[in-house]
Amino acid sequence: MNYEQYIRVIEGFPTKEISFKDISPLLNNPEAYKAAVKEMAEIVKGWGADALIGPESRGFVIGAPVAIEAGLGFIMARKAGKLPGLCISKTFTLEYATATLELPQFAIKPGMKYVLIDDLMATGGTLAAIKEMIEECGASVAGIVTLIELTDLNGKELIKGVPYQSLVKYPH
Amino acid sequence: MNYEQYIRVIEGFPTKEISFKDISPLLNNPEAYKAAVKEMAEIVKGWGADALIGPESRGFVIGAPVAIEAGLGFIMARKAGKLPGLCISKTFTLEYATATLELPQFAIKPGMKYVLIDDLMATGGTLAAIKEMIEECGASVAGIVTLIELTDLNGKELIKGVPYQSLVKYPH
Repeated sequence: MNYEQYIRVIEGFPTKEISFKDISPLLNNPEAYKAAVKEMAEIVKGWGADALIGPESRGFVIGAPVAIEAGLGFIMARKAGKLPGLCISKTFTLEYATATLELPQFAIKPGMKYVLIDDLMATGGTLAAIKEMIEECGASVAGIVTLIELTDLNGKELIKGVPYQSLVKYPH
Repeated sequence: MNYEQYIRVIEGFPTKEISFKDISPLLNNPEAYKAAVKEMAEIVKGWGADALIGPESRGFVIGAPVAIEAGLGFIMARKAGKLPGLCISKTFTLEYATATLELPQFAIKPGMKYVLIDDLMATGGTLAAIKEMIEECGASVAGIVTLIELTDLNGKELIKGVPYQSLVKYPH
């Protein structure tokens, strides 16, 4: 399916230099949304992982249904202070600031294989930070999949060595 | 299924007086997560709605897979400034502060019927605010479903007149 027709490009959001890829029209179209979820679930199944991890918040909208479709559990990677109980936490640098992501400690086990999923890969900073957290726990990342890839930003470089796939690439 | 065994109750999070209901163990269990999604999708299908709306962020983890399972589109209700393009916006009062929620304007159409979904209903403030936004657009809410209901807080009162169902109730 040509998913791109369901992605709305909005220039200058949230800041002037960003060409925002809005997935709202895709989510709003049951056939396109379901097709994308099924295609990503097939990719995930091929990696033989134990569970799927997606970052807050758009990573939840893509990752949660893919987990159900692939028959896996879903682990929320959340911003600092949002998850209760013992957490694994990592602060990392984005282009303009630092961010902290947390994972529930009980869900990350040494020797287990995880797939990371998000709506979009830009610089790869968020996905690379989660990958490092997983590896520091003695677990591994079996693959990373995103709906959209911004190829110009070369996020693949940051997650080198891990299989990566995306359904829609900008620019073409 | 007894979903409650997969919900972890953490006292004093995020603030001293709150007994937090953590759905992370349920999400992490593929069978329990899938069963809950299927059961909520059956409830949603019974209401004959045009689309599903869930608030950021845990509403996405429950709402997105239910939308796929029910064959409906999913609309993200997000905090102010997160959605691009034209939005419908509403500021409402919570116990301790005010909050603003936004919906993508293109997705809310007069005459259409929406189901609201979230992980938990406490005071009902968030769900009632979305319901008001929908009704002010000339559309209607066909039903509201949450995984968890805190019956003591009587959130049902705020969404009176709309069919409401939940899978797990506290206290028993």
